[in-house]
Parts: sequence; structure tokens; C-alpha cells
Amino acid sequence: MGQAVTKAVSGRQDVRLAARFDRPGAEGEGLVSLEAALAAAQVVIDFTTPAASVALAKAAAARGGPALVIGSTGLSDEDIAAIGEAAKKVAIVRAGNFSLGVNMLMGLVAQAARALRPEAYDIEVFEAHHRRKVDAPSGTALMLGEAAAAGRGVKLADVAQRVRDGVTGPRPAGEIGFSVLRGGDIIGEHSVSFVADDEILTLSHSARDRGLFARGAVEAARWAATQPPGEYDMQDVLGLK
Amino acid sequence: MGQAVTKAVSGRQDVRLAARFDRPGAEGEGLVSLEAALAAAQVVIDFTTPAASVALAKAAAARGGPALVIGSTGLSDEDIAAIGEAAKKVAIVRAGNFSLGVNMLMGLVAQAARALRPEAYDIEVFEAHHRRKVDAPSGTALMLGEAAAAGRGVKLADVAQRVRDGVTGPRPAGEIGFSVLRGGDIIGEHSVSFVADDEILTLSHSARDRGLFARGAVEAARWAATQPPGEYDMQDVLGLK
Amino acid sequence: MGQAVTKAVSGRQDVRLAARFDRPGAEGEGLVSLEAALAAAQVVIDFTTPAASVALAKAAAARGGPALVIGSTGLSDEDIAAIGEAAKKVAIVRAGNFSLGVNMLMGLVAQAARALRPEAYDIEVFEAHHRRKVDAPSGTALMLGEAAAAGRGVKLADVAQRVRDGVTGPRPAGEIGFSVLRGGDIIGEHSVSFVADDEILTLSHSARDRGLFARGAVEAARWAATQPPGEYDMQDVLGLK
Amino acid sequence: MGQAVTKAVSGRQDVRLAARFDRPGAEGEGLVSLEAALAAAQVVIDFTTPAASVALAKAAAARGGPALVIGSTGLSDEDIAAIGEAAKKVAIVRAGNFSLGVNMLMGLVAQAARALRPEAYDIEVFEAHHRRKVDAPSGTALMLGEAAAAGRGVKLADVAQRVRDGVTGPRPAGEIGFSVLRGGDIIGEHSVSFVADDEILTLSHSARDRGLFARGAVEAARWAATQPPGEYDMQDVLGLK
Repeated sequence: MGQAVTKAVSGRQDVRLAARFDRPGAEGEGLVSLEAALAAAQVVIDFTTPAASVALAKAAAARGGPALVIGSTGLSDEDIAAIGEAAKKVAIVRAGNFSLGVNMLMGLVAQAARALRPEAYDIEVFEAHHRRKVDAPSGTALMLGEAAAAGRGVKLADVAQRVRDGVTGPRPAGEIGFSVLRGGDIIGEHSVSFVADDEILTLSHSARDRGLFARGAVEAARWAATQPPGEYDMQDVLGLK
Repeated sequence: MGQAVTKAVSGRQDVRLAARFDRPGAEGEGLVSLEAALAAAQVVIDFTTPAASVALAKAAAARGGPALVIGSTGLSDEDIAAIGEAAKKVAIVRAGNFSLGVNMLMGLVAQAARALRPEAYDIEVFEAHHRRKVDAPSGTALMLGEAAAAGRGVKLADVAQRVRDGVTGPRPAGEIGFSVLRGGDIIGEHSVSFVADDEILTLSHSARDRGLFARGAVEAARWAATQPPGEYDMQDVLGLK
Repeated sequence: MGQAVTKAVSGRQDVRLAARFDRPGAEGEGLVSLEAALAAAQVVIDFTTPAASVALAKAAAARGGPALVIGSTGLSDEDIAAIGEAAKKVAIVRAGNFSLGVNMLMGLVAQAARALRPEAYDIEVFEAHHRRKVDAPSGTALMLGEAAAAGRGVKLADVAQRVRDGVTGPRPAGEIGFSVLRGGDIIGEHSVSFVADDEILTLSHSARDRGLFARGAVEAARWAATQPPGEYDMQDVLGLK
Repeated sequence: MGQAVTKAVSGRQDVRLAARFDRPGAEGEGLVSLEAALAAAQVVIDFTTPAASVALAKAAAARGGPALVIGSTGLSDEDIAAIGEAAKKVAIVRAGNFSLGVNMLMGLVAQAARALRPEAYDIEVFEAHHRRKVDAPSGTALMLGEAAAAGRGVKLADVAQRVRDGVTGPRPAGEIGFSVLRGGDIIGEHSVSFVADDEILTLSHSARDRGLFARGAVEAARWAATQPPGEYDMQDVLGLK
């Protein structure tokens, strides 16, 4: 991820790589100490471990900056609380998926689900991934289903229909259906359709390059640089809140 | 439109047709006078003429109700001002296109355009209509382009690219492109794509039945029935404001 | 179906309705006896019962014409043999689905499946239908799967994957996957994708009006009028054989 | 292209790279002389210059092998004649675009255009490419238009509609329309739709990786290895003739 972020930064005029750092003991061209990194940067992009992210957040809070973009996974509730405490002093964007498009999709789906009544609009989520993927539906498809369910004020588990095969009977109103395609090297396609008798609204996302997430983290960093202290997510970065 | 609205109402449990009325002198089963209609209804759906709509708005305002849904076209600035004056006393929803899906699409496009930077995301509008349509791009496609331009704080006229043929040169950043398909009996397809190097977000709408607009007007009526006096549009009905 | 065919004929210059007939005892404007119908027409379009279709085929064969288009369902092997015998004297087109587009799709899918190797191209069938449909995948989706399997010289039952949910493991080469969407009033969407690592070929069909099948029957009739005796299907009508 | 072909070969069990050669004087790891290459290989894949391709074809013909796959561009009529002469002795596949999917699409479009009458089916070609592309419609889109026109027995120039903007009037029957999208880093999307009043058949191709053409050349080589002398193109490789 460090390399992908470096590449995402290098193509832009509006952001500049101040420094790269890694876990203590790591070696590599251009790597500096945490302290030097904090001093040099307006924002730090952090894809490390829960422990390293918490340490980073505390150090940044103690110094009163820089802002942080945290993409580390596996954070415990305690880790999240510690990061939240640090966010009282610096702006911190935290997310599990940094794709701008996917996060935008998620926000738009929630709004559409809130506005379009379940009696008239059937919600269906479709996803396609490469042939090596071993589970279905994708995590992102389920998150989109959650966003739709939340928009309707219901729990996804109560309305999800993940399999249709054989004699299914008619589709119940309120159901959220999933369908899955697997093949080739598809990076990730997702779409959410709101299907009424007389119209269909479809919101969809196609990932075309795996560098997508690094670019989203850089966009988050650019946004975070000008924010007051606080805990933020990608919906904030996108201005959807 | 009167018939289409009647049909749209008849399939629902949550709204009921109180009365139908037409221009003075018209005859037809179930038609009543304007006064009787105002007395009988919580909301009046009005697809008539500018003069009739203004008269209706004044009458409703004088009585303190019912709420109005106005879909008449060709309103002058004066007509709009008169309706606005009446809206101080009753809730009035006014719109040029009552499709819930198209209005939702418009609202979502504006948001996405606001959030996704022109340096990274190229906006393209595609529309398809039946072979009898005599102009291009469609009015709705241009409205979607306006929504995207407004989201970016620019004027559509300054960034629209309506033709690409021959030696075009590379696509300028910030451009909003249009493409058009004509064929068969397609009622109306619209899509707006935000195309980055690494991802594509596409928001699209497919009209499947020409009764679509009547149903949207009924949804607007259902919403208007519970609103305080004010001027509203379909973005309000959809909760996008 | 009689009415739909009448309507499909009425809009055309190149075919003309000679007569309509129904089962003995039926009454209706313009209905004539079987004998009168055979005498009046170059082609008879027949959507009746197996017994009626067999009787019609025998009568046409005995007279040496007219040609027949038979869409009756539920034909037994014996019925089919009797119709085949009649086809030695007159041209007979028989089909279960008269949509030109669906039959074209079927023929193209078989060809693509024959040419594109299973090691490189993953075949996936997607279908969408209205919320009232009680089974999945649709009969047409399964026929498309059969066409793809036949193109590859395998049996669909051996390679079909109709459900993907939970931990699925990676997709095996040679599999033919199905996915299903249900919602609104969708008349019928079908697509077959050939997904390689570096490209995707997608062949798809969208039904927009239920009059589709009547029009296909009329197209078959127009074709049959100029054919020598023989048993034909829609692939013949489309020139795909 | 040499590197892309090498990579395409390396991932496969059923073909093996016997040797690489380049223009006289070129240096590089594993490069051998033309004579050594001809002796070592069952098939030679050639993306060079017209002069080099003609020399290669003559040398292979003189030796009675190997088979050739020629992708050089800019061949004159004389060059093509010389290659045709050599093809009396060895199998030669020659093509401008080696994508299997695009060539398949081309073949299927021609068939559909032959079968589906212009009075009922409107043909529309859509293409999308990256923002750096400087011309429109794409060469492949025009080839697809040519394939459709040929299927109908007309000249594309007589029926092509490349621009729709402003007051266009209704769409004439028989027209072949083009529409164009530009954005991001899209490698190449093409679709051809046959739009009737009651159904739409859409045949489409999505290029996902620029290695596509190398893989197609390798597929052509694998096919050519077992063919008798003759001039072939990708339609032959795909079994569409």
C-alpha cells in the first residue's frame, strides 16, 4: 500500500510526498522516523497495524498535528476509542474501503432507499468478481445491502434474499435480493437497482484498477489537511453528511 | 393525464380519488366543479393550463386548502409568482417532470458532481429514445447535465460537448459529454457516468411505462397532504434537500 | 395470441390477414372454417392444442398447402412425428419461443461457446424478470445455458452452477453460472457473458413488449411462405443454419 | 508486442516459445536469426514491418513451413499479393486486430444484421475509450458498422449517422447510428444494438487489459499450426466461416 500511495501521489500537483516511514527496524529508500514524518507532513496516511495506528494517533494528538488518514484493519473497540480520543486534537479520517466511488455509491444508495417506498421499488444488488474469489456475495455487496436496509429502517438480515433457485414463489415486497457473477479477472463490479413497475433506477460502480484505494486515501488526506479536529469517514470526505 | 392519474390512484390503498374536474364546460363521468373538488380533497393534482393553475392556486389559498400538485407547463414568471404567493397559505409541489426516479437521479448526480473532482472524474451523459424523437440530446439529458454542472459550480454551456466526430483531440478535463442513441420504441434511458482512471460510477434511469409521470404526481400528492404551506419541488418530495 | 397476431399483421404492408379460425364451435368476428382458412391463406399461424395442430398439419399436407407456423405447446413425440410426416408435403415452422431476438441470441451464444475456449472464457448467464415470476432461473436462461453447453460439447447439468452463496471456493474452469434478478414489471432480460482475463463478450436481449412473440410468428410466416416442404425452426427463419 | 506475446505464451501449457527474433542488427536476450527461428518453430508470430513480413512469408514458403501469424500494419496491395502467393505453400493468418472477442463480435454482428430486417430493427453502435483518444468513432466501431452494413447488403457510408444534435427529425429506417463516450482510462468498450419496438438485442465487448491482442495472436498461432496452406483471418480462427 505504501508503494501504491507513493504512486498515487506522484501523479498529482496538489499533494506532495513529504516522507515515508515504516515500522521500527524496517529499511528502505526514503524512510524516516515517525518523529521526522510527523514534523514534515500536513497529513499522514497510515496503513499499518492497530498498535502502530494507535501510537501514531497519540503522537499526532500530543503534537497537535498533523492530520491522519487511517486504513489499518482489525482495530479493536479499545483501539477505536483511543483513536477517537486523539481526534479531539487532530482531524482523523478512518475507513475500511477508501474507494471514492464505492463510498459515494453507498451514500447514494442509502438516500434512494430512504426516498423510494418498498411497496413500489424492489431493491436488488448485483456484483461480479474474478474467478479466484472464494466467497459470495462480496463484502462490498453486503455493505451496499446494509446501506439500502438502513435507508429503509430495516435490518438486512431480515430482508436479504441471497439465493433464488427452483420454485421460489413471487418476490415479497421489501426484500433485498443479491445476485453474483464470477469470471475472468474482474476487479469488482457492483450495482444496486430500484425496480418499480414503470421505471428502474440503477446505481453502479466498476473498479478498473487496483490502485483505486491508494488514490482514495490520498483524496482523504487532501481533504483532512484543512479540517478541524474530529473523527471523520469517507462520507465526510465526499460531503455526503 | 387525468386518466393516467386516475389509474395510478386506483391501484393503491393509501390514496383515494375524491373527485375529478376539468375546464368549465367539459363533460365526463365523475367530473365536478372546482369548488366541489376543493371541498372534497386533501390534495388536488393539476395538469391544466397556466391560467387554470393560477386560478386554482388562488382559490385554494383563499380557502386555506387543499394542498396542490401542479404539473402544468408553460407558466410565465408572473404565473410562478402568483403560485408562490398562494404557497404562503397552502403546500404546493410544482415540477416539470414527476418521475420519482428521474428526480432522484438528478439529485444524486448533483451530489456526486460536487464530491468527485473534475481533474479525476470525467462526466458523460448518455440517453436513448425511440426512433420518432426529433431532437437530441433529450431535455432530461440536458437537465442531468445542468445538475452535474451545478454540482461543480460551472455553467453547462461552458463545458458541454455535444458532438464527437472525426479528429476531436484529447478530452479536456471538466468537459461534460453527451451521447445519443435512437431506436425502436425506447421510452427513455438516461445515464450519467463519472469516469476516473481507476473506477467508473454510473447512475442511470430506465423508463418502462409512460404511466410513470402520473404515479410520481400521486406520490407528490401523498407527500404534500402532510406538509405546511410552502413552495416545493420533487427534490423535497424525495427528501433530498 | 390470435389477437396479438392480428395486431402484429395489421401494422405491416408485406403480409395480410386472409382469415381467422378457432376451434369448432367458437364464435367471433371474422372467424371461418378450417377448410376456408386453408383455401384462403399462403401460411397458417397456429397457436392451438396438440390435437388441433396435428389435424391442421394433416389437412394442409393432404391439400399440398398452405405452409404452417405452429406454436402449440405440449406436443407429444407422436404429435411431433405426425407433424414431421406432414412436413414432407408443406413447409412447417415449429418453435416454443417465437421471439426473433431470443432465437438469434441462442444461435449466437452457441457459436461463441464453440469458438471461445473454456480454459480462457468463463460463461455466465444472467436473467431478470418481474416480481410475480415464481421460478428461477427462467426457462429461456436455461435454454441459453443449453446452447452454450452444446457449443462446448458438454451437458449443462454437468457444468451448471445455479447458486453462489457463502464460501464457494474459486470458480472451476468450464462452469456455466446463473444469476437471477427479480423486480418490478420486467418483461424479460437475458444476457450471456464470456469473461476472459483481458476481455468480456456479452450477448444480451431485452424484451420490451409482450407482443414480441406474435411478431416473431408473423416473421416466421412470411419466411415460410416461400420455402419448400420441410421441418423448420426459428434458427432456419433467421438464416443461422 | 514481442514482450506481450512472450508473456501470453508463458502462462499456457499448450504452446511453447521456440525462439524470438527481431530485425537484423537488433540485440536482446534470446533473439535468434530468422533462419534459426523458422527451423525451430511450428508457427511464427510476426508483428514487424511490411518488408519484413513479406520476406518472412517468402522464406517460410520456400522451406514449406512454418505457419505464420502476421499482424504487421501498413501492408500495400503488392505486399498482400506476395503474402497471398506464399500462402499457397503455408498457412498464414493475417489480421488488423487480434482480439478474439472483437473478431467474434464482428462475425456475430454481421449475422444478426443479415437476419433482422431494417424495417423493424434499428442498428446503433456505441463505443467508449479513454480521454486521450483523439478521434471518434473508434476504428473498431467503424469496422462493426461495416460488418452490420455488409450483413444488410448496403454501404456504411450511405447509412451511417455519426452525429445527432439539435433538431434531428425522426430516425430513418435503415440508418446505422454511432455514439461515443470519452473518459478516464477506458481501454475500449463497444456495443452494437438491434432495437425493435418490442425487443433489443445487444452484442458488446469490453477490453480489460492491453495484453488482449497478444493473447489473440497466440490463439491464432495455435490454430494455424494444424491448418493446410491457405490465407486465413480471425473469422477462420473462430470457426465463423
